Amino acid sequence: MSLAPIIEYEQAPAEVRAVYDEIMTLRKTDWVNNFWKVLANDPPTLRRIWDNAKQVMAPGALDPLTKELIYIGVSITNACEYCTYSHTAAARGKGMTDAMLHELVAVVGMANQTNALSDGYRIPVDDRFVP
Amino acid sequence: MSLAPIIEYEQAPAEVRAVYDEIMTLRKTDWVNNFWKVLANDPPTLRRIWDNAKQVMAPGALDPLTKELIYIGVSITNACEYCTYSHTAAARGKGMTDAMLHELVAVVGMANQTNALSDGYRIPVDDRFVP
Amino acid sequence: MSLAPIIEYEQAPAEVRAVYDEIMTLRKTDWVNNFWKVLANDPPTLRRIWDNAKQVMAPGALDPLTKELIYIGVSITNACEYCTYSHTAAARGKGMTDAMLHELVAVVGMANQTNALSDGYRIPVDDRFVP
Amino acid sequence: MSLAPIIEYEQAPAEVRAVYDEIMTLRKTDWVNNFWKVLANDPPTLRRIWDNAKQVMAPGALDPLTKELIYIGVSITNACEYCTYSHTAAARGKGMTDAMLHELVAVVGMANQTNALSDGYRIPVDDRFVP
Amino acid sequence: MSLAPIIEYEQAPAEVRAVYDEIMTLRKTDWVNNFWKVLANDPPTLRRIWDNAKQVMAPGALDPLTKELIYIGVSITNACEYCTYSHTAAARGKGMTDAMLHELVAVVGMANQTNALSDGYRIPVDDRFVP
Amino acid sequence: MSLAPIIEYEQAPAEVRAVYDEIMTLRKTDWVNNFWKVLANDPPTLRRIWDNAKQVMAPGALDPLTKELIYIGVSITNACEYCTYSHTAAARGKGMTDAMLHELVAVVGMANQTNALSDGYRIPVDDRFVP
Repeated sequence: MSLAPIIEYEQAPAEVRAVYDEIMTLRKTDWVNNFWKVLANDPPTLRRIWDNAKQVMAPGALDPLTKELIYIGVSITNACEYCTYSHTAAARGKGMTDAMLHELVAVVGMANQTNALSDGYRIPVDDRFVP
Repeated sequence: MSLAPIIEYEQAPAEVRAVYDEIMTLRKTDWVNNFWKVLANDPPTLRRIWDNAKQVMAPGALDPLTKELIYIGVSITNACEYCTYSHTAAARGKGMTDAMLHELVAVVGMANQTNALSDGYRIPVDDRFVP
Repeated sequence: MSLAPIIEYEQAPAEVRAVYDEIMTLRKTDWVNNFWKVLANDPPTLRRIWDNAKQVMAPGALDPLTKELIYIGVSITNACEYCTYSHTAAARGKGMTDAMLHELVAVVGMANQTNALSDGYRIPVDDRFVP
Repeated sequence: MSLAPIIEYEQAPAEVRAVYDEIMTLRKTDWVNNFWKVLANDPPTLRRIWDNAKQVMAPGALDPLTKELIYIGVSITNACEYCTYSHTAAARGKGMTDAMLHELVAVVGMANQTNALSDGYRIPVDDRFVP
Repeated sequence: MSLAPIIEYEQAPAEVRAVYDEIMTLRKTDWVNNFWKVLANDPPTLRRIWDNAKQVMAPGALDPLTKELIYIGVSITNACEYCTYSHTAAARGKGMTDAMLHELVAVVGMANQTNALSDGYRIPVDDRFVP
Repeated sequence: MSLAPIIEYEQAPAEVRAVYDEIMTLRKTDWVNNFWKVLANDPPTLRRIWDNAKQVMAPGALDPLTKELIYIGVSITNACEYCTYSHTAAARGKGMTDAMLHELVAVVGMANQTNALSDGYRIPVDDRFVP
C-alpha cells in the first residue's frame, strides 16, 4: 500500500474535487489515476503539480506524444515503476504504436549504455559542442 | 584527461579508420568527436557501439530528432556531461530549436519530479495501466 | 524472496544475536526488521553496518528525526523500496507527522526537478558558491 | 558554458526582471545566481519554477534549514554539481554549521550504502512497515 | 505484467527461434528467460542485444564470473530488480559462492557510500590520478 | 574547490595523522589522496570510513583487484568523477591492464543498457531466479 491513503472523489474536499474534475475534463475520461489520488492528501501539492503538468505537457514546440516519450525515457532511467506504467499508457492514448515503443526502449537502452561508456572513460567534451 | 588516450585518424589502425570513415560519411562531416576517438582504444567495442548506434538511431517509427530528444532526456537524468553536450549538439544539427530545447528540459525536470513523488509515496500501479 | 535467507533469532549464532539484542535494546522494541536479518548471513557485515548506523544516526549537530528525513530523501531518489518503507516508519516513530511527510516528499520532488534543470542546461557554478 | 546563455538583468524582459526582483527581495540580496539567469531563456519556466520553489521551500511543518538539508541530500545522490554547491551555500545562509554539514554528508553516504545493501539482497518489506 | 507480451518458442518466428536456439546451446540449457522472450517482440533488437551480450560477456582479459559480478554491481546501483535476480542466478551458475555474494554486496554498498561522500564534498581529483 | 578544506598532514590533529599513517603504511606509499584529506575535517567519519574500507576491500573470497573492478563499475554508474579516477588508479596499481579496463567499461555499458531494457518493458522475474 502507498505511504498515504488513496483519496476517492466521494471523500475529497472541494479543492481536491476541483482538480479531479479538471483532470477528467482535460482527458475526456471518467476516472482519475492513483498518482493524483495520493497527492490529494496534500491539496496544495496536488494543485501545484497538476498546474505544472498542464503547462509542461501542453502542445508547444514539441507535440504531446513526443513529450510523453521523453517522460517515459526519464522514468525508465530512474527505474520508476509507477511512472513507466502510467506514462506508457498515456503515450498509447496519444498514438504510440508497438513499433514506436520498441524504438523508444531501444534508444533509452542505448543512451544508458553510452552514458556509462562516456563516464567510464571520462571523455573530455569536444570544444565544438560547447556553445 | 580521459582514462584512455584519444586516437587520431593518423595513428589509427585500419579497422578504426574504417569506422571513422563511416561516421564522417554518414554525418556528412570531416571530423570525429572524442567519444569515438576514445572507444578506438578497443577496436571491437568501437565497431560494436557504432553498429548499435547506426541501427538504433536510424529513422524508423520514430524520426531521428525525436530519438535525439529522448537520448538527451536520459543523459540529463544520468547527469552525463559528455552525452548532454554531444547529443544537444546532434539534436541542433537535426533541427532542434531553442523553443524545443526549453520544452525538452522542462519535461525532463517534470518527469524527475513526479518520479520522486511516485517513489516517495510508493503509489500502487492502477490496474488499468497493466496490459 | 530475498537473495539470502532471513535469519531468525533462534537459528542465529551468538555474534548475530548480540547485534539483534543491541538493536532491540536501543530501539526499545521486541523485534528486528528484515534488513538486519538478511545482513546476518554475513556476521562481520552485520556488525559493521550496525556500528556505522549507530554512529551516523546518533543525535549530534542534527537531531535524529532530521537525519531520518534526509535518509528518506536519498532512498526515494534511489528508488529504494525497502529503505523508503523502513525509514518512513522510523521517522514516524521519531515524530514525523503527516504534514511533515508531505513537505518532505514535495522537497524531494522539487530537488529532483531542479537537479535535472541544472544538468540539462549544464549551468556553471557561480563563483560565490565556491568556498 | 551553459547550453543556453546567461541572461543579465539589463538585457532581460520585464517578466524576467519581475522574477529577479522577487528573488532579490525574498533573499534580501542584490544578486541572482546563474540557475535563474539560465532559466530566464524560457520565461514561463522561470516563473513556474520560482513559484514552485517559493511554495515548497517556505517554512511549514519543516523549517527552511531542514528543507535545504534534504535538498542537498537529493542533489548529492544525483551527483548534481550545481545544486550541491548552490544549496550548500543556501544552507550555510540559513545557519548550517560545519558540524551539521559533516553529519549531513555522513547520513547521505550511509543511506546510499544501505540502499545498495537492500537492493543487492532484494530484502522483502516487513509487513509492519506497510500502512 | 510486462509492457510487451512474452513470446514463447512455439509462437515465435524463425529469426527469433534462431536466437533462442543460440541462447540454449551456449548456456547448455533447455529454457530461455523472460528478458529475451520480451525483447523478441522486436526481433532486430533481440538479435542486436544477444550479439552484444555474447561479445561483451565472453571470456577475455576478464573471466566470465568477474564480468557477472561487475554486472550485478551495476544492476544493484540502478535498483534494477530483474537484472539483480537474473545476473545473481547467472553468477551462481558460474561458481559464485555465498561468501563471494556477501563480499560483492558489501563492496557495492561501500562504493555507493564513498561515491556520495566524494560528491557531497565535491572533492577535487588528485593530479596523480589523471593520466 | 571542495566544500570543506583539504587537511594536510602538518596541520592535522593526532587522530587524523594516525589514519594517514595507516593509509600510507598499508599502501606502501608516502602520500594520501584528497578523499581522506577532506574527510579529515570530521575525524570520527575519517576513522569510520577508513576502517570500513580496510574491512570491505581486504582479500577474501574475492581478490582485491576484482573488488576494485566492481567499485569502478558502481562509480561509473553513479557518474562519480572522483571515484572513477581514484579507483581506476587503484586498480592499475593492483594489476589492471588496458585490456581489462576496456572489458570492464564494456560490461558496465552493457549492464546499464540491459537494466534500461528490463525496466522499460517491466519484465517479470522468472520463477527460477527466485531462491
